This record gives sequence, structure tokens and C-alpha cells, in this order.
Amino acid sequence: MPRARVLIRPKAGILDPQGQAVERALPQLGFTGAANVHVGRLIELDVEDIAEVAGMCERLLANPLIEEYEVIELASASAGEPSA
Amino acid sequence: MPRARVLIRPKAGILDPQGQAVERALPQLGFTGAANVHVGRLIELDVEDIAEVAGMCERLLANPLIEEYEVIELASASAGEPSA
Repeated sequence: MPRARVLIRPKAGILDPQGQAVERALPQLGFTGAANVHVGRLIELDVEDIAEVAGMCERLLANPLIEEYEVIELASASAGEPSA
Repeated sequence: MPRARVLIRPKAGILDPQGQAVERALPQLGFTGAANVHVGRLIELDVEDIAEVAGMCERLLANPLIEEYEVIELASASAGEPSA
């Protein structure tokens, strides 16, 4: 059973207030030089058919109006992925 | 300037209500067979030194008590990463 990793990000041009907040907070903690910070969501799941994941994103996982998604197939879930 | 991708997930054993909600909603949309669904956060940023990212996670990006993080170095930001 394949394991899928879905990366969901704000589309280019869409406001990313969480990313802006992180970018402003980092220098106050002494981390200088961070730029282009974007905050999105990470979803990982076992699926029977990796091709179904795009449909899941369109209909549930992401908001296609304002978010883009990327589906990455990981090694099979039986190959050591913790099931907790 | 390296670009870092940070994956933040609930630690094993920590309640993941968002993952549970997704896992329950998928069958109602006709997607059967999804399992072990976990929802976390995705943070991507340009940094001067990739080694600093773990410290950023400990102090700002993640909550180390309940979340685990994974830092992945991507291709350099100058190699085509959109800066929007």
C-alpha cells in the first residue's frame, strides 16, 4: 500500500500571513537571513492508489482556489513507516 | 542560499484530530482505503545556513513537546525556486 505525502502551499500571489509572521519573528530570536518563508500544510496517508490523491486534494485536502498541492509517493507503508 | 523544507508532524502517540477528521471524511467522498492519515505543517524558507533550521524549529517553528520535525535541504533558491 503506497504512502503519499501531500504538500499544500498558498498559491503564488496569495497572502501568506503565517509565513510573514515567521519571517518577522526569526530575526528577533537571532536567526538572520531567512527569506521567502512560506507556511503550508503537510498531509501523509496510506492509499491504495496513489493516483486518487489528486482527487482527494481537489475535493477535501486543499482549497484549489488559493492553494497549490504537490503529491509525493513515499516508500510503501509496509517498509517501516510507523503506523501510530 | 539553500532552501529548506521543514516537515512538522504530531509525535507518535499524540492525538491528531485533523488526521482523524480527514480519515473519516474521505470515505464519504468515495475515497476508500485511506489509512494512517496524519496532518502536520509545511514550512519552506531560504536560509544562509541549513544547520540553523533545527534551532528555528526548536524555538519557533515547532512545539518540540508534541511535534517532531524533519529538515530537508532543497536545491539552492537561485536554481529556479519562485520567490513569490
